[in-house]
Amino acid sequence: MLEDLKEAVYEANLELVKKGLVIYTWGNASGICREKGLVVIKPSGVDYDELTPRHFPIVDLEGNVVEGDLKPSSDTFTHLEIYKAFPEVGGIVHTHSRWATIFAQAGVAIPALGTTHADYFYGEIPCTRKMSSDEINGEYEKETGKVIVETFKNVNPMEVPGVIVNEHGPFSWGKEPKEAVYHAVVMEEIAMMAFHTIALKHYINCQNEERTSLLDTSHTKSFKICNSMTPALLKKHFFRKHGKNSYYGQKQIK
Amino acid sequence: MLEDLKEAVYEANLELVKKGLVIYTWGNASGICREKGLVVIKPSGVDYDELTPRHFPIVDLEGNVVEGDLKPSSDTFTHLEIYKAFPEVGGIVHTHSRWATIFAQAGVAIPALGTTHADYFYGEIPCTRKMSSDEINGEYEKETGKVIVETFKNVNPMEVPGVIVNEHGPFSWGKEPKEAVYHAVVMEEIAMMAFHTIALKHYINCQNEERTSLLDTSHTKSFKICNSMTPALLKKHFFRKHGKNSYYGQKQIK
Amino acid sequence: MLEDLKEAVYEANLELVKKGLVIYTWGNASGICREKGLVVIKPSGVDYDELTPRHFPIVDLEGNVVEGDLKPSSDTFTHLEIYKAFPEVGGIVHTHSRWATIFAQAGVAIPALGTTHADYFYGEIPCTRKMSSDEINGEYEKETGKVIVETFKNVNPMEVPGVIVNEHGPFSWGKEPKEAVYHAVVMEEIAMMAFHTIALKHYINCQNEERTSLLDTSHTKSFKICNSMTPALLKKHFFRKHGKNSYYGQKQIK
Amino acid sequence: MLEDLKEAVYEANLELVKKGLVIYTWGNASGICREKGLVVIKPSGVDYDELTPRHFPIVDLEGNVVEGDLKPSSDTFTHLEIYKAFPEVGGIVHTHSRWATIFAQAGVAIPALGTTHADYFYGEIPCTRKMSSDEINGEYEKETGKVIVETFKNVNPMEVPGVIVNEHGPFSWGKEPKEAVYHAVVMEEIAMMAFHTIALKHYINCQNEERTSLLDTSHTKSFKICNSMTPALLKKHFFRKHGKNSYYGQKQIK
Repeated sequence: MLEDLKEAVYEANLELVKKGLVIYTWGNASGICREKGLVVIKPSGVDYDELTPRHFPIVDLEGNVVEGDLKPSSDTFTHLEIYKAFPEVGGIVHTHSRWATIFAQAGVAIPALGTTHADYFYGEIPCTRKMSSDEINGEYEKETGKVIVETFKNVNPMEVPGVIVNEHGPFSWGKEPKEAVYHAVVMEEIAMMAFHTIALKHYINCQNEERTSLLDTSHTKSFKICNSMTPALLKKHFFRKHGKNSYYGQKQIK
Repeated sequence: MLEDLKEAVYEANLELVKKGLVIYTWGNASGICREKGLVVIKPSGVDYDELTPRHFPIVDLEGNVVEGDLKPSSDTFTHLEIYKAFPEVGGIVHTHSRWATIFAQAGVAIPALGTTHADYFYGEIPCTRKMSSDEINGEYEKETGKVIVETFKNVNPMEVPGVIVNEHGPFSWGKEPKEAVYHAVVMEEIAMMAFHTIALKHYINCQNEERTSLLDTSHTKSFKICNSMTPALLKKHFFRKHGKNSYYGQKQIK
Repeated sequence: MLEDLKEAVYEANLELVKKGLVIYTWGNASGICREKGLVVIKPSGVDYDELTPRHFPIVDLEGNVVEGDLKPSSDTFTHLEIYKAFPEVGGIVHTHSRWATIFAQAGVAIPALGTTHADYFYGEIPCTRKMSSDEINGEYEKETGKVIVETFKNVNPMEVPGVIVNEHGPFSWGKEPKEAVYHAVVMEEIAMMAFHTIALKHYINCQNEERTSLLDTSHTKSFKICNSMTPALLKKHFFRKHGKNSYYGQKQIK
Repeated sequence: MLEDLKEAVYEANLELVKKGLVIYTWGNASGICREKGLVVIKPSGVDYDELTPRHFPIVDLEGNVVEGDLKPSSDTFTHLEIYKAFPEVGGIVHTHSRWATIFAQAGVAIPALGTTHADYFYGEIPCTRKMSSDEINGEYEKETGKVIVETFKNVNPMEVPGVIVNEHGPFSWGKEPKEAVYHAVVMEEIAMMAFHTIALKHYINCQNEERTSLLDTSHTKSFKICNSMTPALLKKHFFRKHGKNSYYGQKQIK
């Protein structure tokens, strides 16, 4: 059942390793068949080089295993919450990729600082609030999904196709598993660049302050190191690539 | 038409991927035939492994497609402005390479801090001013080219063969596409080293200030972390490699 | 004698190179046969590509060579102290891997800052105290082992399977050599992420302070950049993977 | 003539590329035959993949080309000054490797911060003073060598087999070209770790000061971020590997 989706999810999982986002078994990708309401997901804790598409279990949206001998990923219930809340999502990826995880561990959003970000994410990539002890000790993986959904109350998940889970790591999604992987790669790349942009602004800021403070110590003023990019540029680049007026690439609508 | 130039531009685009400056379709290289006033450029949003030289469209200096079925890069009009303003330029490269883009996102020039920089860039690599909303919402890509040209009002583009576009990323150029790629690689390397030199100076500066402040809090003085290198050394290294008195390499004039 | 263990220790040493934790001869792995009280360890200063399993010397717990023509690793006595003090340890790894060594050189523990850490280490990875001149000038390698054991007075070495040796580098261990390598890889990964998390918190902290100081300079308050993660989340993730109630992976008990 | 030395120097130059210390033609290795007083060095500005051992020119200690059609490296006179001043040196390497060059650009020595450093360098790797305009505009490459030699007035070049040239990059040496390469790799590795150790100490230092300043603002005291490691440990590790009492590796004297 769902052989094509299994193949797509299998490929998505391998791609995570090839792109350097995942070592050992530290990640998982899934895909959904919206018609049947069934999800294909990576089995839990199995080495990537032992996997073939037919190993991938199928679960329904309540998490019941419908097909397959292997236990689905321990993060399955997080994926399911996202699928249930965001009807346009067709594939989801979770990794512990280095730079996105660094933002997760610091508990801060990845600010939109340049066109590389704007090309794929229309605004900052938000960071979830910390989970409560009750949430952690209860249905932990399901609660993780809920706190992700809560974070998107005022954000369109198809315009910002990813999130930082506080003290944990990134989740990303897309119209299909392959696009979810693409967004995971982009998020890692822009997290790396955002980190160093913040650092560079900090160094220069410190220097400027000192200069200022020699003249007048009463109102040292710093430019805010996490400030977002020019709004018009953010909009321009996002909609150059997305939506009905996009003009990037060979086809009018990607 | 222009088969050799197509081959050269094709090779330049592949080289960007091999050198690790470009992932997915995040970059483009072009070359110009000055005699005919025609430019060969990478098609928009096509995977590098699907490209062959004959896929590359040819455009004139007004951006009209003269040959080819594929749409030229969305950044074509930026390239054209540079070709029109800098008559010695034979090839142009644009990437979102990590370290140069970090400087772009922070909106600062790459200062000349050592001989590695001086060997190829005779002075800091400037950063353009931010673009206005009107420029962004108007003919955006053409305006990007114009703001680049504006930045070189008092700088010789053949002595400083690259630029940082504010909140965006680097452009570089050379006498031919291959040299534009070479300069893109150099810029990335010196951006990486400039970033960390600034950081290291900052750490040491902070320490020294504290020592000073124990003695006398009235005039903490820091060495400026972005200060350029010794001018005589900058000159020596640049002209050791360039111009009629150069003596690096096997031929007198490179 | 102990051919299987030699094979396992040989593989563990090669894996350290493959994972990028070791260059040249800068590391060593060993394994113990608890029944016979004998340890197989890498020979000292031999290139990895010249090694075969039969080159590996066997020593008893006092460090006497029981089999083999090559001198055992100069760090042998450190390994032996760990084996003697921690009876559940079956394999030990020592490297100079970059990020863990950076924490060693700064003389600080790797704080638990996210679930990647919590999945394998139940709490911070401690850093030993500095060794005294007497310890250094005496039986140095044995004393290194002793100071490691001392550091675990109140820590369960099977819940925190690794340590940072002050001004030196990391040691890790596990139920077998392969697991010791796995923990070395994890430690390096989480050290890299902890470093940058601390840095990111620092940058944001500095910015927030300045904002605060504009309002009121009397009680600048910073969030502590090395603070550990939410205790409930640390516990949840560690015991999701370890012990009798673990539910990660395909088997109930890993 | 000197075919074996040519082969050794050729291999040393290739190894620099393999180890990631050199891109394009940004480095050079040489070797000396002390009996004949002749030096084999990389030709200037030639791509590494076009080189064979017989391309390598031979020069005498005054820089006269004794054999070979290609012009020797533009840095030849720097190498010659080092050979003339340090009689035990058999091979020299110059690169623009990233981390060592970052220290050069900041103009600071690489402090000895851990045993990885101590295993090969008995103390900090010094940074030369800045060169004067006269030195730069005069016999520049020869003067570079002289300022290196000047830096070792009170340092044994066989105990500290490398140097940072201010605003330029690293030189290293050894008893033969192969060892000079080895020391270049070590220097790059310890420069990378020293940089981040300094950074980590800085972050923690800043935090501690703030804590202190809440209690008492009159004597904030920071631990010095560039302080060297415990002297006894530096000595122990260096002489564990070098000299007549060394006991690392399979032979008593390496």
